[in-house]
Amino acid sequence: MRVGVFGASGYTGLELLRILIRHPRFEVAVVTSEQRAGVKLGDAFPSLRGLLDLTLEASDPALAKQIDFAFTALPHSASAPTVAALRKAGVPVADLSADYRLRDLESYERWYGRHAAPEWVGRAVYGQPELHREELRSSELAACAGCYPTSVLLPLAPFLRAGLVETGQVLVDSKSGVSGAGRKLEAGYLFAEQDGNCLAYKVGAVHRHVPEIEQEASLAAGAPVQVTFVPHLLPTIRGIATSVYLRPKRRLPASAARAVLEAAYADERFVRVLPEGATPSLQSVRGSNFCDVNAFADERTGSLILLSALDNLVKGASGQAVQCANLMCGFPEELGLLEAPLVP
Amino acid sequence: MRVGVFGASGYTGLELLRILIRHPRFEVAVVTSEQRAGVKLGDAFPSLRGLLDLTLEASDPALAKQIDFAFTALPHSASAPTVAALRKAGVPVADLSADYRLRDLESYERWYGRHAAPEWVGRAVYGQPELHREELRSSELAACAGCYPTSVLLPLAPFLRAGLVETGQVLVDSKSGVSGAGRKLEAGYLFAEQDGNCLAYKVGAVHRHVPEIEQEASLAAGAPVQVTFVPHLLPTIRGIATSVYLRPKRRLPASAARAVLEAAYADERFVRVLPEGATPSLQSVRGSNFCDVNAFADERTGSLILLSALDNLVKGASGQAVQCANLMCGFPEELGLLEAPLVP
Amino acid sequence: MRVGVFGASGYTGLELLRILIRHPRFEVAVVTSEQRAGVKLGDAFPSLRGLLDLTLEASDPALAKQIDFAFTALPHSASAPTVAALRKAGVPVADLSADYRLRDLESYERWYGRHAAPEWVGRAVYGQPELHREELRSSELAACAGCYPTSVLLPLAPFLRAGLVETGQVLVDSKSGVSGAGRKLEAGYLFAEQDGNCLAYKVGAVHRHVPEIEQEASLAAGAPVQVTFVPHLLPTIRGIATSVYLRPKRRLPASAARAVLEAAYADERFVRVLPEGATPSLQSVRGSNFCDVNAFADERTGSLILLSALDNLVKGASGQAVQCANLMCGFPEELGLLEAPLVP
Amino acid sequence: MRVGVFGASGYTGLELLRILIRHPRFEVAVVTSEQRAGVKLGDAFPSLRGLLDLTLEASDPALAKQIDFAFTALPHSASAPTVAALRKAGVPVADLSADYRLRDLESYERWYGRHAAPEWVGRAVYGQPELHREELRSSELAACAGCYPTSVLLPLAPFLRAGLVETGQVLVDSKSGVSGAGRKLEAGYLFAEQDGNCLAYKVGAVHRHVPEIEQEASLAAGAPVQVTFVPHLLPTIRGIATSVYLRPKRRLPASAARAVLEAAYADERFVRVLPEGATPSLQSVRGSNFCDVNAFADERTGSLILLSALDNLVKGASGQAVQCANLMCGFPEELGLLEAPLVP
Repeated sequence: MRVGVFGASGYTGLELLRILIRHPRFEVAVVTSEQRAGVKLGDAFPSLRGLLDLTLEASDPALAKQIDFAFTALPHSASAPTVAALRKAGVPVADLSADYRLRDLESYERWYGRHAAPEWVGRAVYGQPELHREELRSSELAACAGCYPTSVLLPLAPFLRAGLVETGQVLVDSKSGVSGAGRKLEAGYLFAEQDGNCLAYKVGAVHRHVPEIEQEASLAAGAPVQVTFVPHLLPTIRGIATSVYLRPKRRLPASAARAVLEAAYADERFVRVLPEGATPSLQSVRGSNFCDVNAFADERTGSLILLSALDNLVKGASGQAVQCANLMCGFPEELGLLEAPLVP
Repeated sequence: MRVGVFGASGYTGLELLRILIRHPRFEVAVVTSEQRAGVKLGDAFPSLRGLLDLTLEASDPALAKQIDFAFTALPHSASAPTVAALRKAGVPVADLSADYRLRDLESYERWYGRHAAPEWVGRAVYGQPELHREELRSSELAACAGCYPTSVLLPLAPFLRAGLVETGQVLVDSKSGVSGAGRKLEAGYLFAEQDGNCLAYKVGAVHRHVPEIEQEASLAAGAPVQVTFVPHLLPTIRGIATSVYLRPKRRLPASAARAVLEAAYADERFVRVLPEGATPSLQSVRGSNFCDVNAFADERTGSLILLSALDNLVKGASGQAVQCANLMCGFPEELGLLEAPLVP
Repeated sequence: MRVGVFGASGYTGLELLRILIRHPRFEVAVVTSEQRAGVKLGDAFPSLRGLLDLTLEASDPALAKQIDFAFTALPHSASAPTVAALRKAGVPVADLSADYRLRDLESYERWYGRHAAPEWVGRAVYGQPELHREELRSSELAACAGCYPTSVLLPLAPFLRAGLVETGQVLVDSKSGVSGAGRKLEAGYLFAEQDGNCLAYKVGAVHRHVPEIEQEASLAAGAPVQVTFVPHLLPTIRGIATSVYLRPKRRLPASAARAVLEAAYADERFVRVLPEGATPSLQSVRGSNFCDVNAFADERTGSLILLSALDNLVKGASGQAVQCANLMCGFPEELGLLEAPLVP
Repeated sequence: MRVGVFGASGYTGLELLRILIRHPRFEVAVVTSEQRAGVKLGDAFPSLRGLLDLTLEASDPALAKQIDFAFTALPHSASAPTVAALRKAGVPVADLSADYRLRDLESYERWYGRHAAPEWVGRAVYGQPELHREELRSSELAACAGCYPTSVLLPLAPFLRAGLVETGQVLVDSKSGVSGAGRKLEAGYLFAEQDGNCLAYKVGAVHRHVPEIEQEASLAAGAPVQVTFVPHLLPTIRGIATSVYLRPKRRLPASAARAVLEAAYADERFVRVLPEGATPSLQSVRGSNFCDVNAFADERTGSLILLSALDNLVKGASGQAVQCANLMCGFPEELGLLEAPLVP
């Protein structure tokens, strides 16, 4: 199948190419970049030299004819019209932006501004296969889950579904590598400012990923869930480590909590429930599509603690998009994705 | 004043020397190390070459005669007998180990094993000047506060003292640089295992700093406080970034929460309450004795969020010990400690 | 083909598994580790959980029966007897240690001590496909090239072969990530000692890789070559960046020098000659089997400067071993090795 | 003495403030920044909060009246007119830019473009106290040495002065932390592009520091010296590690080479000649004004190898500027500069 990567020059676009190069069924036929149109891929990205002989093009609706499937890795709000054009041309799309993640248009416009192609909002499936596998199989538009939401929802959803925890007291403390911000030219992302640093940002209810987390958490709980979310920037390139703090409705020892995760993910290829007491580590998932999770209980205080680790560019973005695409195309879900993490 | 540094070859011992070298009133006269006795300081630590011309000695009670004040930077349980011998010889001591931090001997022995010199337990003052300044002025034994506890107690204590928050629901998510573990030869601390990594450890109530945090938090609250504590290892050498999540007893907007911190620390030299909305960063305190704090509120969920950042080897250990020593010796509290952070 | 990895718990062993997991023709059947025998692979290495369901075994000659090919990733001198036993049992071996790299036994014993199985020394082929491809095709014992030598020989050999440079004035300044030292529990490799650091070591003619570089360089030149080699440790996990400084016999402008590299590597899949003026970067080869090279000339001083970058665990060790194995087994040389670098 | 820091918002400006805060004789009275004029220093640089209560101002000739000494830390070519104005007003200046380093105006204009105030070129003293101490004592304009040149000249000059090495074959391989580039908003300096990376740049004779190195090296040799210079970017914030490769005119064993350094630097406070065989490390000088050096010989090839390590923002810039200022003001040369390195 010939695929196009729209917005190939950002970090998630580049990561899509890295994954697609080894995918046995997808062949990259089109790569677009507005700023670098006309440049050969290997010149724009020396790492890809000798692997993929393509030239970056400006985005154009006519490109739809050259492809059977599209990945859109464009900035928020720039993605919507491209997605709409591709869908109109009949091309199935896995969209990595936030443009179609929120089912509620009003909520979208409060967080992201005016939506450029709202007619497709209701027709997208939230792109997290562990939560929406069957809908994805029959979908032609996946709104791939955000990196933070994936790291929160995978450990959290089973407890909400089972009604085991208070829905009004969900605290999330997340730590992300700087690639999560994309290739942003801001002083805060310079090596000299980030190395050895660690700081929280957008503390409280002001991060755009909050409505996305709450939408899917509420769906899992069957009731409104409110999340206190505090993201941090880590001095590392890749990875999100998330701690979720919950109040169980009734006593829930660590072993029982782990059993909830094990039951939920027994058949999942990419969610690994670690052995009792083992904490997820960013290194153990680096470069891979795995999300490692585990559950802990503080018996004295009654707190339930869920931990997860994933690579924000793979399971938190491009890997998950390919996982969605595999489902949408009827391929085995794990095709091209069973790469071992880069350790050390 | 002639001072001795017992256990000079660990990271906190080395940091003590770095600070004492620029201190106008303390002169380092004795440095001890069991493993490296007989080695010149500049040979053991090339960074000190040309700054301090001393030879490491084995610890010996007779050394007490050569000094007017002692810093003990020995491992837990190894420290107690040295402290006792120094105190018997009349030398005032700032102890950086945990041996005299817990007032309750039983609690100490549950966490650390048998205490080698319990007779001094009741006579030590907890070494955090912002909490126990007056007692330190008249003390001859400071049990310097741990790094994690300092990062938690400085933002937390004012809210407990004012009775503004629930004492049963204190959640602490801390992130520490690897120097906090000392110069430990374990695989997990190798560069190849830690770089780019981030992982939680001792999740739940199993970290030794928990009883220390709860002791001082309860003292501040005038009632038992229970803390859920989750520490993480960061891919950085220095620094602790702590998030404290609280439930206010009644609505507490961010501005009111910040006002609590500002009132508490208006006259403190080393606790900096940041402007509204600014988050503490490890880089801004690196190498310095500052602890930066701020308060945030999530108005939707009612959560109160306190953030702090400090350098675990300075305000979390050796800087705080010198701050205690200044008080114990009647010097200005900030003497030798107003160093600007190393930025970038 | 069933393969065994002997010494699977070191960094190069682990990297072999990472590569072999995606190799379409090799199936890992045996993994050994003396220290961790009996431990499941996923317990020893959480990154491999869910990818390879094997248990580490103690090394045993009987294991030879279960495999068709062996990779030995054991420490120097421990490798020789295992290789000998496997070869006696008829199993072809790609050896990643230094035990069979030096053709001259006396030289080996001067640098590494007594050789445990010298009878195989003459029968090994130096395992660098770009230099010894045809011999490797018909060999049953590859002595895979060291990481530093690979980074030096790939840019250097074409100039020696063409007789373009002085053989007595080859200066090499190499910078290596710390994984090159293996999982060594020494203070110098701790994160707190290596982060932000950079230092030379074994300066002069005292690094064991010097005789290996000189052996192959002399072979290429058809005359004795002497190399001044200064290795450095970088604050990064993976990668070697090498600068080779040469004196051309007659004027050699940059364009002519690049042409020498382009001619030598036009048909090579894993050596990428960069465009004029572009410098190789560690990031652009991270996790991949590529070695990027380029040539520069300082027209004023007459110096010829060759630069290379590779991932020491892939092209400098395990990837190159699989490349050798592919040749030895009659597979396409690049099978399982065309992975895109991990960028960013 | 009241001092002004012109260009306080760059990395060297910020570092000047860090050093001047602890200087017993200089009091910072004026800080300028064009972009951030009107902003309080503690708001612009949170690390300085509570240490220096000043407001950034736009540069203005009238400021000369408020100060007794000026440090100019402005970009190249922007510095010249400010220096000229300050000098006209009679204020002595330590200039950290390159504007007055080259004595030859033509050479300056070839590398940097048109000089804005060439009338002062002949009146500046090259600001490296170990090379020009006496001239600095009587100077009112120090053109502080560049970071790379300092790291090269300190180990190299004694050998040139003694006529021990060939002047036509000086090879320099330098590795610098990214703060050397200043706070430049270019993609290459982003954390996600630099972490774990290492790459050479401006290879050959194209780095602006080459004419500066050659000017001072030739002065030391009393004959023209030609340098091949290859700088690299390291994944660290601070520090330059330099290797200088030389051909001795006659056999020069390591011990004799070390003796040359020891004789040259016996009375120097900031140049530390390490023990035989010890290699300089960036960590051992981090945050300090020391430059560690050592000499090695490869007896087989006859190469002489000099190694140095310094902190590019201290001995390579702001610390050296204060050292020059101390001399110019008649203070002890080491005043405010004997800070212990930040280890770990």
